Amino acid sequence: MISIRQFDERDWQATWRIIEPVFRAGDSYTFLPDISEADSRQHWIDSPLNTFVAESASGEILGTYFIRPNQPGLGSHVCNCGYIVSEVARGQGIASEMCEHSQRTAINFGFRAMQYNMVVAANEGAVRLWQKHGFEKIGTLPGAFKHSRLGYVDAHVMYKQLVN
Amino acid sequence: MISIRQFDERDWQATWRIIEPVFRAGDSYTFLPDISEADSRQHWIDSPLNTFVAESASGEILGTYFIRPNQPGLGSHVCNCGYIVSEVARGQGIASEMCEHSQRTAINFGFRAMQYNMVVAANEGAVRLWQKHGFEKIGTLPGAFKHSRLGYVDAHVMYKQLVN
Repeated sequence: MISIRQFDERDWQATWRIIEPVFRAGDSYTFLPDISEADSRQHWIDSPLNTFVAESASGEILGTYFIRPNQPGLGSHVCNCGYIVSEVARGQGIASEMCEHSQRTAINFGFRAMQYNMVVAANEGAVRLWQKHGFEKIGTLPGAFKHSRLGYVDAHVMYKQLVN
Repeated sequence: MISIRQFDERDWQATWRIIEPVFRAGDSYTFLPDISEADSRQHWIDSPLNTFVAESASGEILGTYFIRPNQPGLGSHVCNCGYIVSEVARGQGIASEMCEHSQRTAINFGFRAMQYNMVVAANEGAVRLWQKHGFEKIGTLPGAFKHSRLGYVDAHVMYKQLVN
């Protein structure tokens, strides 16, 4: 049983412990692996429209996601989200719960669609998960992601309309 | 005969006269139609990596384009460009010349590919032009662009690899 709620200032250290190893790995997000804590906070907390955390019944932060407009102005009705689950809590459906929560959040904010700009094709588990939640592979960008171990790899653009 | 060169401070007023009507039209760029001159300058000149102008033999500015990384960090080897040709100089091949120039510029800056994130599908002339210059339609984002006259319309993601 997890609950998902808005990020609060006191959650930063726990959030940073979850997102830091993922940024350092350089295999899913575009942030440089040596990104600073301050810049990470800027990207994950300050710059997005909103950030959420997934919390266990005992109050442990197990996951986090942000939501933001994907483009300015005439593209700002499409949002973009990023999700990270704690290494110790994978395989429990937390990413799925955050994905569903983020879609409700998006609709509440008035967004009409959600777009993932760069889903690393090699991360097949992520691709399948987003497909399960109704996202379509719009297309594949050849060599668009510089993977820390695999070099230049393909990335998918994925998209879901939230209202008709 | 046009020549393409880097934007210089003295070019701003001529550049603004070219880009303003296109932003105001709200049918191709995501900027809100009521964007200010200062914000326009920020987006077209200050925030990109570089901006160029296309100049006639008599020194008149007839077109302009910017180049920037499309994503940070591990996606920063893919660039993004935006091009605008003066209303009085359309149909003379200036967009084509800027597109070719921008690809050489991109390679000189070390970019490996170029991506257009939001090519309004209704702008069929633009789509054909980019295809002629080697860009592929990667996929189509349903309703991703809020067109000032047509409402929510589809937009293509287009992409070209510049090095193998």
